[in-house]
Amino acid sequence: MRERLTVVKVGGKIVEEESSLLQLLNDFAAIEGCKVLVHGGGRSATKLAEQLGIESRMVNGRRITDAETLRVVTMVYGGLVNKNIVAGLQARGVNALGLTGADMDVIRSVKRPVTTIDYGFVGDVKQVNAGLLGDLIGKGVVPVMAPLTHDGEGHMLNTNADTIAGETAKALAALFDVTLVYCFEKKGVLRDENDDDSVIPSLTLPEFHQLQAEGVIQGGMIPKLENAFEALDAGVCEVVITSASAIHGREGTHIRK
Amino acid sequence: MRERLTVVKVGGKIVEEESSLLQLLNDFAAIEGCKVLVHGGGRSATKLAEQLGIESRMVNGRRITDAETLRVVTMVYGGLVNKNIVAGLQARGVNALGLTGADMDVIRSVKRPVTTIDYGFVGDVKQVNAGLLGDLIGKGVVPVMAPLTHDGEGHMLNTNADTIAGETAKALAALFDVTLVYCFEKKGVLRDENDDDSVIPSLTLPEFHQLQAEGVIQGGMIPKLENAFEALDAGVCEVVITSASAIHGREGTHIRK
Repeated sequence: MRERLTVVKVGGKIVEEESSLLQLLNDFAAIEGCKVLVHGGGRSATKLAEQLGIESRMVNGRRITDAETLRVVTMVYGGLVNKNIVAGLQARGVNALGLTGADMDVIRSVKRPVTTIDYGFVGDVKQVNAGLLGDLIGKGVVPVMAPLTHDGEGHMLNTNADTIAGETAKALAALFDVTLVYCFEKKGVLRDENDDDSVIPSLTLPEFHQLQAEGVIQGGMIPKLENAFEALDAGVCEVVITSASAIHGREGTHIRK
Repeated sequence: MRERLTVVKVGGKIVEEESSLLQLLNDFAAIEGCKVLVHGGGRSATKLAEQLGIESRMVNGRRITDAETLRVVTMVYGGLVNKNIVAGLQARGVNALGLTGADMDVIRSVKRPVTTIDYGFVGDVKQVNAGLLGDLIGKGVVPVMAPLTHDGEGHMLNTNADTIAGETAKALAALFDVTLVYCFEKKGVLRDENDDDSVIPSLTLPEFHQLQAEGVIQGGMIPKLENAFEALDAGVCEVVITSASAIHGREGTHIRK
């Protein structure tokens, strides 16, 4: 029987404030079995850039990453945020290993082609090498992944944390029974966006299409769910969309084939 | 037969300037067999601290690491410098893995006790866990180690890169035939400090004691050599003190039992 593996993605906000970080570390340490944590760090990056007089430019919620900004995110995501989480998990008996995509060539990406927008040093994931990563997880190591990849030509690239989580979950699905937990600011996919308690407990693809046709699910939730169903198609057992206070994945919206 | 392992320590200066970094990456990639790179990064840390308005205070060449400075070195050593080296080595076919002591609990340290000087968040190495590290090296992974450790209680600690290299070499000597190469600004241990070509090609402990008694070897070189002989006592096969342009360890001063 294959082992279960939980891949948890948390946004920047939760890992950047002392009190919510401590809660996250406790909650994540309590998850049983094999696990992976993927984190953001955008607010700290924006703050450091500001202190250094570097302007943060966002288009459609994505950071334009020029050379100076790449230095900032490499420091903040790969250094400050990542290592504080790793040290915090080690203190809780979790054998954490901080990784960017460059480390052990875990995630290789290509610099996003310039179309109408030049996102700069932003990477679109090309390949996840799950072999050594899977070995380590099998030995009790818990990868903590920063939203950075590399191009195989010596450059780090800024990469969306949701994508890192999704692609890593898909690649590890060849070796483990993977549950992918996306944490965000709501309790799950809501039936009524003005009612935080109107969480849809489970969703299949036909149900999603119907709710989309009815206009119940709209906006930014649509690509999130499309990614979730894509992960299921690629072998991930279950995707959960939930709040950061429920990273164990027992609440929220459970997405199954 | 045990495999050979080369542990190379390079200072901050060489990894912080574009041209010397590229040369280092090429030279390190060319070293055959198992290897580990340990790097500094002090100049970049001082520069970032300056940009952020944080004063860098040094006592006896050691950085006083207050909470703000710890954030800076965690970003610079663990993020910027480390990940650029890792990406650069990956581009040269070296399967590099960036590590701090917190990652996989590789190096645990204790915060240096306050005596006449309070060094702040500085760690003195307590224990190197060579098991998983040795496994990975055996699989072709090349650790790239930043001068940071952790205390096992959730805190990162700033740690001297020479010490990281020495302690890692000693721990890995249980698994490999280790050569430890310390690179610095001179070609080796000099017989005449004003003559850069007066390199002493080899040194045993009795020879060291004699040259020390004669006043030929003095100052900062004495603790460096004491550490080298300590490493030999702990099972390291050979220690080489050489310049960054000879990291292969064939030149410089060869220290043997």
